[in-house]
Amino acid sequence: MDVLVPFDARDPKTRLSPILDPSERRTFARAMLTDVLDVLRDAGHQPELLATAPISCPCPVSVDDRPLTTAVNAVLAERTEPLAIVMADLALLTTDAVERLCSPNADVVLAPGRGGGTNAMVVRHPDFRVDYHGVSFRDHCGQARACDATLSTVDSFRIAADIDEPADLVDLLVYGEGEAHEWLDEADFTVVERDGKPAARRHGENR
Amino acid sequence: MDVLVPFDARDPKTRLSPILDPSERRTFARAMLTDVLDVLRDAGHQPELLATAPISCPCPVSVDDRPLTTAVNAVLAERTEPLAIVMADLALLTTDAVERLCSPNADVVLAPGRGGGTNAMVVRHPDFRVDYHGVSFRDHCGQARACDATLSTVDSFRIAADIDEPADLVDLLVYGEGEAHEWLDEADFTVVERDGKPAARRHGENR
Repeated sequence: MDVLVPFDARDPKTRLSPILDPSERRTFARAMLTDVLDVLRDAGHQPELLATAPISCPCPVSVDDRPLTTAVNAVLAERTEPLAIVMADLALLTTDAVERLCSPNADVVLAPGRGGGTNAMVVRHPDFRVDYHGVSFRDHCGQARACDATLSTVDSFRIAADIDEPADLVDLLVYGEGEAHEWLDEADFTVVERDGKPAARRHGENR
Repeated sequence: MDVLVPFDARDPKTRLSPILDPSERRTFARAMLTDVLDVLRDAGHQPELLATAPISCPCPVSVDDRPLTTAVNAVLAERTEPLAIVMADLALLTTDAVERLCSPNADVVLAPGRGGGTNAMVVRHPDFRVDYHGVSFRDHCGQARACDATLSTVDSFRIAADIDEPADLVDLLVYGEGEAHEWLDEADFTVVERDGKPAARRHGENR
């Protein structure tokens, strides 16, 4: 299946600013993207990047600097074939999770993200459009109903766990593998216990 | 299958203290427990409560006020039949997720929790013991290897998403149903956008 992977090529992962500088955020985001593209290909799919700026990448790239929702809907409006949309920061993604996403034979398949987002979906209905603002999972369910699309959901921690903010790094350190995990490791991040719960800490950082 | 559900009947959910008083935390924890027990029974299993203090409950209850790890291992030491262990704060649990947990025919089945924990497992090996301290998922994988047990993992957001701290309430408000969701609703919690991301807010609370 064709899989659209939106990617912020300019100033990615701003919520990681407290712990990574702009250059590190770009490198880290790029490592997560590489992992996601690798997993999609290993699962037998054809990823296509939808980037906010030109970027060199071993897969087809289209550039659209409009907001995420607008850019994705422009792609959907031109498609007749089924399309999956997978976020570029799903650093825990596995081929199993991708297979489970693509298995249900529904017009719309949604995979919830932590905090109410929609981290991955499959669209097989011509009228379905996305709206990534706010609690998008709820909106996407409503949107599927509104266009009379059959709806299925996929229960996957590895899809739900996007890497957005410092606390999310624990999951990548514990459960991840691949380039992003390796980058964190080389950047001296480890898991420590802080206030009775696991936290990601960078070597040399004050507790 | 028999399912052990450990439950803190004294001072549960202390990390929700910033937004719930002690009495509310007890009521809310009890609502989550009810939901978990209902789902386990609906999935065809036999839940047994392992509580830190006497509690009235429509299922068998044993009381052990020792730390979680010690109390669970005392149960495991006496068992010969397979046993699942499911945390009492999995307020998003569904029968599908329970079925996926119980399906793999491995000696040990682990379901990761957000932040490195082990939110649910199935134990079919006589030598396997738990250690819930810290990044328990990693330790449990090592423990399975150490006793030559076959190991399988289950990828479920609904198992991974335990409700521990205020930020977790968003997931329950968006994805939950059942008593805990209803209690939050009646306690006037809703999802709002705060600093560009969804957050749980109580009516009347200062932003």
